[in-house]
Amino acid sequence: MTPDSVFDHMWQALQPVGRVASTGGYRRFAWTDADLSAREWFAGEAAARGLDLTVDRNGNQWAWWGDPDRDGPGVVAGSHLDSVPDGGAFDGPLGVVSAFAAIDLLRSRDVTPHRPLAVVNMTDEEGARFGIACAGSRLLTGALDADRARALRDDGGTTLAEAMTAAGRDPGQLGRDDETLRRVGTFVELHVEQGRGLDDLGAAVGVASRIWPHGRWRLDLQGEANHAGTTRLVDRRDPMPDLARAVLAARSEAEAHGALATIGRVRVEPGGTNAVPSLVQAWLDARAPDESTVRAVVAGVARAAGTTAHEESWTGVVEFGAGLRDRLAALLGGAPVLATGAGHDAGILASAGVEAAMLFVRNPTGVSHSPAEHASRDDCLAGVEALATVLEELTR
Amino acid sequence: MTPDSVFDHMWQALQPVGRVASTGGYRRFAWTDADLSAREWFAGEAAARGLDLTVDRNGNQWAWWGDPDRDGPGVVAGSHLDSVPDGGAFDGPLGVVSAFAAIDLLRSRDVTPHRPLAVVNMTDEEGARFGIACAGSRLLTGALDADRARALRDDGGTTLAEAMTAAGRDPGQLGRDDETLRRVGTFVELHVEQGRGLDDLGAAVGVASRIWPHGRWRLDLQGEANHAGTTRLVDRRDPMPDLARAVLAARSEAEAHGALATIGRVRVEPGGTNAVPSLVQAWLDARAPDESTVRAVVAGVARAAGTTAHEESWTGVVEFGAGLRDRLAALLGGAPVLATGAGHDAGILASAGVEAAMLFVRNPTGVSHSPAEHASRDDCLAGVEALATVLEELTR
Repeated sequence: MTPDSVFDHMWQALQPVGRVASTGGYRRFAWTDADLSAREWFAGEAAARGLDLTVDRNGNQWAWWGDPDRDGPGVVAGSHLDSVPDGGAFDGPLGVVSAFAAIDLLRSRDVTPHRPLAVVNMTDEEGARFGIACAGSRLLTGALDADRARALRDDGGTTLAEAMTAAGRDPGQLGRDDETLRRVGTFVELHVEQGRGLDDLGAAVGVASRIWPHGRWRLDLQGEANHAGTTRLVDRRDPMPDLARAVLAARSEAEAHGALATIGRVRVEPGGTNAVPSLVQAWLDARAPDESTVRAVVAGVARAAGTTAHEESWTGVVEFGAGLRDRLAALLGGAPVLATGAGHDAGILASAGVEAAMLFVRNPTGVSHSPAEHASRDDCLAGVEALATVLEELTR
Repeated sequence: MTPDSVFDHMWQALQPVGRVASTGGYRRFAWTDADLSAREWFAGEAAARGLDLTVDRNGNQWAWWGDPDRDGPGVVAGSHLDSVPDGGAFDGPLGVVSAFAAIDLLRSRDVTPHRPLAVVNMTDEEGARFGIACAGSRLLTGALDADRARALRDDGGTTLAEAMTAAGRDPGQLGRDDETLRRVGTFVELHVEQGRGLDDLGAAVGVASRIWPHGRWRLDLQGEANHAGTTRLVDRRDPMPDLARAVLAARSEAEAHGALATIGRVRVEPGGTNAVPSLVQAWLDARAPDESTVRAVVAGVARAAGTTAHEESWTGVVEFGAGLRDRLAALLGGAPVLATGAGHDAGILASAGVEAAMLFVRNPTGVSHSPAEHASRDDCLAGVEALATVLEELTR
């Protein structure tokens, strides 16, 4: 098989894993059967190439060509295989499949790396099940406390510790892992672009400049449960209008500040058709080029809802190292350099002092976290080519 | 024990059934363990009084003093024992407990009814589990089709047929039940008031005049799933602002029309914190003194949300018979006569041609469908006294 057809073959093998027939989207949540199937696929691809598989204490999978413990820190390419609820096929898997395919390309050209080279599958990047994005890299670098992680619960009440135990892993081993970190000299994450920046520029591949600061806030809107059919309007303490004002403010504050703000998750108690709610909880996702703008947007939304916003997570701005970034852009023939609003494991590693970079592959509609997420086969193969070029250069 | 202390004893025995420790509210949903416990309690109270227990094909429990098949249609008092999610202790149970207590009062006064007399526990009045309110009375009168009822699903995907089978009942028997209906000459449902009408009038007990027409509508607000951190505002198809406009319109349309409109149940897909929703579903409860006003409110809300409203249920106005209503009000010393926005089994039976009336007991805060729902012990005992007076008169 040619490297291109091997790419196609890998892509097709991953297609059915965790796919929801009714939507065509994916539900590959950490430590579920779908996730375990994706991990088996990864182990199989590593074995097929004679790569050495290691699974670190936090569940991240590494497939090494060469020995970083003997020959010094290596170059790692990869991404993640988990998904958001009803996510697309590309967010995550494209980076992992492309890393294997880039190795195939180097081998087909008889390129021998002079540094160890690995493919990684980072665990639980989306945080769809336990609520913390990039959990695998945050645990690896110590940015997420192991005790806090073990106690995280999914919607069914299962803790991360219980989920890992059920999947045959030892949650007692979670936590900062310097032994694993020491092996990573440089991390390059290839990812489908999640906007239309490259399409506007007419480029198939780009390089990341920075990740916007971003966070998640919870708004608790208190009301008083009451009968919808008998309680006079003046006697109601209904939190739904506060939610409405928060939703409209999220849009207007984002517009006013050149930011992004989204309320995409809502919980209504008791949630009866004929009950005035006693409590509405809404989660606000806010991002902007700088921290003070994010804070201004969040404050504006909370003010509109007449409440305070509880910060559930916060990630400061990530600047990818300018030296590596510019070197890669030049190497790729002057590829565009773009900022992104999305968090990634590469950002977590960069924040922890690991040399890291990202490549983006064009997404013509910009749609992501959706079954409609798409990149063309030609652009995906251009991404593999670019990644192979980068890996050859970095392991020279 | 005096009749008053028997009332207290019954009330206390029901307190723990289906109670949620964290809220103090109740979750007594049809055919759950809590519901089955409440049914056992009912059977025990019937047996303790030597009443003949029958359970009709639709699951409604009847406790007869006298034989309606031999002596002709009787007088039935009662209500229901199920609850909304985190409902209060009074909505439903007060009517059942008061009916048993009224019989105790008649017996303590050596009153012998000259017509058969019964206490009833109607099944699934709230519709909290399967979505159709007054399911027991609607099935009994044929207002709800048996095939449709059997196929109703709860949030966990369990059908009503499966739930009844699991509870040891035969769902094949569901449907209009003329044999049972023939036994009911007059139905009197005592219920805690769900507003502050009696409190404003300084009366402990009142009589219902009519039930406002009311219904439930579903709004399907379509969007496109997308990444909250990368999708430009102009590229979004976010249905949440449509929800916000629907919520605000529900309030303003209700105010403008002298109606009630409530959105208390919302479903967001995919429901991720970092995902622009692909779909928001919202349920609108609307009620008004007349049908055209309800329709105008619903149309206004749908227009604000830029969608159409799907009618999930509709109940026309119920006028309780003026003869019985005025007779009871006079008998109770000129008790106030009030309309209500809440549906009740008495309304379903009245619509099916059964002579029916309702008594309301004062609710000082007007709060209902909430753990805070309350009526004073004195007012509850005044309700029992009023019900005993009514039953004595109707069985004279």
